[in-house]
Amino acid sequence: MKIAIDGMGGDNAPQEIVKGCVEAAKIIDDDIYIVGMEDAIRKELKKDISVPGNIKIVNATQVVTGEDQPVKAVRTKKDSSMVKAISLVREGICDAVISGGNTGALMAGSLFILGRIKGIERPAIGTVYPQADGTPTFLVDAGANAECKPSQLLQFAAMGSIYMEKVLGVENPSVGLVNIGTEEHKGTPVLKETYQQLKESSLNFCGNVEARDIPFHPCDVFVCDGFTGNNILKLTEGMAQRYVALLTDMFKSSFITKMSAVALMGRLKELKKLMDYSEYGAAPLLGIKGAVLKMHGSSKANAVKNAIIKGRAYVEENVVDIIDQNVARYEQKKAGGEDQPEEGKGEEK
Amino acid sequence: MKIAIDGMGGDNAPQEIVKGCVEAAKIIDDDIYIVGMEDAIRKELKKDISVPGNIKIVNATQVVTGEDQPVKAVRTKKDSSMVKAISLVREGICDAVISGGNTGALMAGSLFILGRIKGIERPAIGTVYPQADGTPTFLVDAGANAECKPSQLLQFAAMGSIYMEKVLGVENPSVGLVNIGTEEHKGTPVLKETYQQLKESSLNFCGNVEARDIPFHPCDVFVCDGFTGNNILKLTEGMAQRYVALLTDMFKSSFITKMSAVALMGRLKELKKLMDYSEYGAAPLLGIKGAVLKMHGSSKANAVKNAIIKGRAYVEENVVDIIDQNVARYEQKKAGGEDQPEEGKGEEK
Repeated sequence: MKIAIDGMGGDNAPQEIVKGCVEAAKIIDDDIYIVGMEDAIRKELKKDISVPGNIKIVNATQVVTGEDQPVKAVRTKKDSSMVKAISLVREGICDAVISGGNTGALMAGSLFILGRIKGIERPAIGTVYPQADGTPTFLVDAGANAECKPSQLLQFAAMGSIYMEKVLGVENPSVGLVNIGTEEHKGTPVLKETYQQLKESSLNFCGNVEARDIPFHPCDVFVCDGFTGNNILKLTEGMAQRYVALLTDMFKSSFITKMSAVALMGRLKELKKLMDYSEYGAAPLLGIKGAVLKMHGSSKANAVKNAIIKGRAYVEENVVDIIDQNVARYEQKKAGGEDQPEEGKGEEK
Repeated sequence: MKIAIDGMGGDNAPQEIVKGCVEAAKIIDDDIYIVGMEDAIRKELKKDISVPGNIKIVNATQVVTGEDQPVKAVRTKKDSSMVKAISLVREGICDAVISGGNTGALMAGSLFILGRIKGIERPAIGTVYPQADGTPTFLVDAGANAECKPSQLLQFAAMGSIYMEKVLGVENPSVGLVNIGTEEHKGTPVLKETYQQLKESSLNFCGNVEARDIPFHPCDVFVCDGFTGNNILKLTEGMAQRYVALLTDMFKSSFITKMSAVALMGRLKELKKLMDYSEYGAAPLLGIKGAVLKMHGSSKANAVKNAIIKGRAYVEENVVDIIDQNVARYEQKKAGGEDQPEEGKGEEK
């Protein structure tokens, strides 16, 4: 397998990206193509005395920044590391592309260069939401589409279920619709209609899920629009930071609590690792005709390494093809209950 | 002052409601009218050997339940504790009403019986969002309006600012718009337009606020639609529960950590109290022509007591009148900069 990495994308590029690539290359046999400003990348590579042979460099003279307007950036920065990395997949040179750069630009670039899977109205970002019980749950959409139609949310549910089953290994994953009440009639008109479509689909729909229950593993796949999903992920992150800060303050407050901290440190580290989504790899751009994965912008070498190693499953398990072949089936009404995928059928909207 | 309490509203009614009323009545001189099934309330009152004279009972034979359809409940259950309690304000017998019952029914009943403040498009629920630094912030809308127009969000911001200043004592409170990015162009079309209207208003607008920053006191008043607000409050609650559960597990895991727990217990209790929104009283239904306050459905006696004692400020500070007189001024463009309130002006939509 050949994996393209946007060497210039993210807050810690290219240093941490290159470091993570080298760490990954020492573990796996696959070729890793680091795309970016050659001089800068070579400079980083020199810091390691034993760079494996499966590290390749592809020169790119431009960089898409976080401030760039997505569509404009993709159109005008043809020689950027991001655009060139996506193009490597388009040209068949690489099997997957991973970037920690501008999310909007990555989505726009992927749409322009690779296109959408047939039948998918809107691609979405799926992301692991780690649970305290040590198992992953999966949230779609994490922020690509601020507003969504019921038919789009239904497709997010189908794509999320496929990813959950194929990559995260949960059979017949349960799907919950994020809403402000568990009752069928709750929420906006869009959510009420989505509830009905999910109920009639062949997905393992378990009803509405309130935000209060999200940290307690109420289902395997959370479905919501990108505005809601983004809020959930960011508030979860903020609350985690707040509690860690509070505990640290508490521990520092006296000699006795400092001793307690020592006693608890091991457990706290375990906990932190358990809840660290970067342990589960990067977030797939579901619905794109090609394996595109988004890392967190603040990814350090370890997260980059995980993104590469875990990202391979997206290719190995043929998630893109399976979505292509099965999304229509998932959307079909239960009554229709056919097992064979049939393109273009079953989209009752 | 005379305060009406819905004696039958909430998960722990009437026991905890009556208990909380008695506790409050022992502290304040104001009359507390408990509205509900007289026999049940008298039975609860008998549990206290020294019920103060400022506790009054108003009989009501019906109860609005959590499952009731709001508008229907208000129309058909005329002799319910909730409807009668609201009517006491309408009739001028009481100055404020507090309920822990069905939120939708309380809003519908308040709209029917008391009406809206002139110029307010939609009433909203405002609620204290406690910060770890021990100071309150305020969130509007907490769940009354799942979808909102920019002009409505602007009014929420104005009403929230007035409440923050008058009741919570923060001068010239800063207002943040909850969004998925800090940049001006982020979010849905509604939020982009709201951003512009807030920027042009005379409110102390500090821009977009991401959910990640909400627990770190980035501003005094958070403005969002009721769907987003409800999600934020519930996820905050869920995350707090998750962390408490994790810490408890951790503490129980060994003898040493059990000892640590003892050392930390006092600090944890402090923390819990700091973050307990019921310490700040009930949530006002902003924009209703009368003081209506909503308690959490699971309120225990202490929360009921706080709701009554803290709720008085809403009446004492004339928040309803001040909203009535000032909302138009807040909505006015900065350039217009007039200090005198002028009804019906300044609503640039």
